[in-house]
Amino acid sequence: MQYFFVALLILTPITVAGSIVELSPNILFFLSALAIVPLAKFIGEATEELSARSGPASGGLLTATFGNATELLIGLFALREGLIEVVKASLTGSIVGNLLLVLGTAIFTGGTRYKTQRFNRTAALANASTLLLAVIAMTIPAIFFQTAPSASRSAATESLSLLVSLLMITTYLASVWFAIRTHPYLFSEDMQHYQAKWTVKKSITILFLATLAAAWMSDILVRSIEPVALGLGWTQLFIGVVVVAIVGNAAEHTSAILMAAKDKMDLALQISIGSATQIAMFAAPVLVLASVLFPHPMSLVFDTFELAAIILSVLIVNLIVGDGESNWFEGLQLLVAYAIIAVAFFLHA
Amino acid sequence: MQYFFVALLILTPITVAGSIVELSPNILFFLSALAIVPLAKFIGEATEELSARSGPASGGLLTATFGNATELLIGLFALREGLIEVVKASLTGSIVGNLLLVLGTAIFTGGTRYKTQRFNRTAALANASTLLLAVIAMTIPAIFFQTAPSASRSAATESLSLLVSLLMITTYLASVWFAIRTHPYLFSEDMQHYQAKWTVKKSITILFLATLAAAWMSDILVRSIEPVALGLGWTQLFIGVVVVAIVGNAAEHTSAILMAAKDKMDLALQISIGSATQIAMFAAPVLVLASVLFPHPMSLVFDTFELAAIILSVLIVNLIVGDGESNWFEGLQLLVAYAIIAVAFFLHA
Amino acid sequence: MQYFFVALLILTPITVAGSIVELSPNILFFLSALAIVPLAKFIGEATEELSARSGPASGGLLTATFGNATELLIGLFALREGLIEVVKASLTGSIVGNLLLVLGTAIFTGGTRYKTQRFNRTAALANASTLLLAVIAMTIPAIFFQTAPSASRSAATESLSLLVSLLMITTYLASVWFAIRTHPYLFSEDMQHYQAKWTVKKSITILFLATLAAAWMSDILVRSIEPVALGLGWTQLFIGVVVVAIVGNAAEHTSAILMAAKDKMDLALQISIGSATQIAMFAAPVLVLASVLFPHPMSLVFDTFELAAIILSVLIVNLIVGDGESNWFEGLQLLVAYAIIAVAFFLHA
Repeated sequence: MQYFFVALLILTPITVAGSIVELSPNILFFLSALAIVPLAKFIGEATEELSARSGPASGGLLTATFGNATELLIGLFALREGLIEVVKASLTGSIVGNLLLVLGTAIFTGGTRYKTQRFNRTAALANASTLLLAVIAMTIPAIFFQTAPSASRSAATESLSLLVSLLMITTYLASVWFAIRTHPYLFSEDMQHYQAKWTVKKSITILFLATLAAAWMSDILVRSIEPVALGLGWTQLFIGVVVVAIVGNAAEHTSAILMAAKDKMDLALQISIGSATQIAMFAAPVLVLASVLFPHPMSLVFDTFELAAIILSVLIVNLIVGDGESNWFEGLQLLVAYAIIAVAFFLHA
Repeated sequence: MQYFFVALLILTPITVAGSIVELSPNILFFLSALAIVPLAKFIGEATEELSARSGPASGGLLTATFGNATELLIGLFALREGLIEVVKASLTGSIVGNLLLVLGTAIFTGGTRYKTQRFNRTAALANASTLLLAVIAMTIPAIFFQTAPSASRSAATESLSLLVSLLMITTYLASVWFAIRTHPYLFSEDMQHYQAKWTVKKSITILFLATLAAAWMSDILVRSIEPVALGLGWTQLFIGVVVVAIVGNAAEHTSAILMAAKDKMDLALQISIGSATQIAMFAAPVLVLASVLFPHPMSLVFDTFELAAIILSVLIVNLIVGDGESNWFEGLQLLVAYAIIAVAFFLHA
Repeated sequence: MQYFFVALLILTPITVAGSIVELSPNILFFLSALAIVPLAKFIGEATEELSARSGPASGGLLTATFGNATELLIGLFALREGLIEVVKASLTGSIVGNLLLVLGTAIFTGGTRYKTQRFNRTAALANASTLLLAVIAMTIPAIFFQTAPSASRSAATESLSLLVSLLMITTYLASVWFAIRTHPYLFSEDMQHYQAKWTVKKSITILFLATLAAAWMSDILVRSIEPVALGLGWTQLFIGVVVVAIVGNAAEHTSAILMAAKDKMDLALQISIGSATQIAMFAAPVLVLASVLFPHPMSLVFDTFELAAIILSVLIVNLIVGDGESNWFEGLQLLVAYAIIAVAFFLHA
């Protein structure tokens, strides 16, 4: 597996070369998307290595920042291009994709090997309630925007977005504190006793280089979204929700399935649901705050369709992990829910 | 009880005679509605007998097809008449009616005899998550329709409806496979060891005759809906949601209450929640697909009011069965929820 | 603590005097708001004392009526002034405030002292399903109003409101019957064996005087809402949702935190969730029915924003109490949810 990802690193120089000789946007789009996959993987590994050496508190903060580095990078470059709808779509896609596609595939794969797989309900539900809080934090501004009197609407929504974003980031940091300081025993032991294999220097070098390369690839990816959307007749919404989200979460996807296949469901859930929570409670509000620096600021107001997809995903995941057991049919249900939402975004012209 | 249903069979020839001598639509409406009740009962019994003889796999398929034969027949005749709103209303009414009225009466009746009744949470929640998936499958097209740009809206919604319907039927068949093949032990033993009492020939004959008669009655019933709505000043929505739904589920209603009174709550839940799931995940998408053959195709887009009734019913049933126990007050809560929804549909001019 | 409340009683004559010498509305608003706090406390205590002496059945009824005496009084005076939006906002605020602010502070405070606090899931969920029923009862009329054809809309919504209100009050009385007669063992023992300390005469006298004084203060409070809203530039919605709701529930707030700090979580939950249930299922419909006597009747139709706040609060409380355990982070989540909603109401011009 590791060799496969190392081999994929060759895609980064190929993509750079391709962008210099001005290949067609369609080719550049797929090259850069694929190139991000191994980079995300190495960013993840370097973060984990550094966390293992740095002690829980700063380790938690590291994971919070670099855990979704690719989503944040793609988001920042898209904000710079003014592609606000693409940013919102890819945030939606990352949340929905982690909850339904990643978790669904993991549960389904695990379920084909084991009749019933068990996991820690309390830890799963701790994440679930944070997700529901994220749903509240994203729903209130949307309804606010739809019902506020039009005169003061934009300014008031903007203030609300910024305040809610600050509250979300604070809560996310509190959840890191909760998980690593006050209640670590609630979470899987497998996650706590990770044995570092790399030196600090090696970890920092890899983290630095992989993040730099991922930033470059994200830039190329984002620049090609508009021409690709035009060329293939796909909507920017679909590209954001499905393509960008799958690319950005490919690493999580692989790990979650591997863990489920080894019957380590606590880890599989932590990766998928934890990643969705991180994007909703950290990446999304960070991008909202960062957008103030760009010409077109982004509010927390997601459109009804995106919001419905997020709310329904959170509800079904809650119901499915709520009993502390999983089986192949529950995995299938999540995958079908994902298929329905993906088809709808594809057709939503 | 059995004799009572046999005696009610006399209503079938009476209704046929009445339709020949052209009785008033009001009388024909109530005669045909009542005539369907015993026929639904015999279709159900013949299906169960055949299933017991045919082995689980084909038995499951039989139940899937004939389990809601009356709803499907009424739906097909109403589609032929172009009464698309009535079909959607009666699907809504069947789902809401099974979840709130049938289950509510069963839990309330059981609760007047037993202080607390217990049942298998896991099996109940397996059905509950399928129901939530049905909610997703019905909500996404509705929001899609409301938010899609108007130019391509009808065509895109039509495609989405058909694709989602295929996904729903596939999932439903997978749930049958799950229940009878890979995880039968999750479900009540009472359901598995049914001892067939009729010969195959007798079962097939009864199934054939009862279905034929039910089709005839459905035809008469559906034809009288429009004049009855005009004559009594009732809305077609109310007739679909309340009257047609109660008639189509009278058999489930009786069995669920009998089971609850004998403290066989697993069966009572399986009948009511299982029947709602079957209608949502099988009957509804089958009617959507079948509607392509008629001049007015029907989409999966339910109106906001119907959708809200379904979503709220699914949520409260989840909460009430989620703890694996029931009592009279929980039954009352479901009945009050039903009363609120029924009154609203009655007043919704 | 007790002495503090006794001392605060001095605010009642001060407020009366202030209203006679026509102090500015801003000062009268804050004086009367503060004056209500100790009165609500004594109404609550006198009710508890009387209940302990009067036997469970009439005790339950007493609590139902006087448990939210302040909310009812403020509501009635606001109805008289035609401030229908203020009444709805303060009902919303009382429900949301009890579920998020009161319960959140209690869980958070308890969580800073105890690692994990446990409570009876069944009793908590019994209240939770009643709350969800209240959500149904409030959502159906709102969607009805939005989707009904405009010709008959007002009259039909009015009828629906009255019928649903009657159903809600009946269900509430049934829940009292359930809690004190048929299933008292589900609820905390601490609540059942309250030892009366006051004589019946003393209790009745205090109840009478405190209610009278609370009525007077409510009258002054309500009259000052409009000028205060104008003067401070606050919306009436915000005053209702946040200010009036905090004042009306100050007593519950204090008790719930004290109970949580003593690790009596069953009582803390009963006070906060029970109080929210009481307002939703009893105070709200009573005010709807009472409003028929005033020139401007009030329907059960809450606006989308209020409804969303209530629905989301009920969902997150369900998730958080559903596992029978709490910790500081769960308390924080509820408080953050409250902050988001309060900020939104403040900005909602």
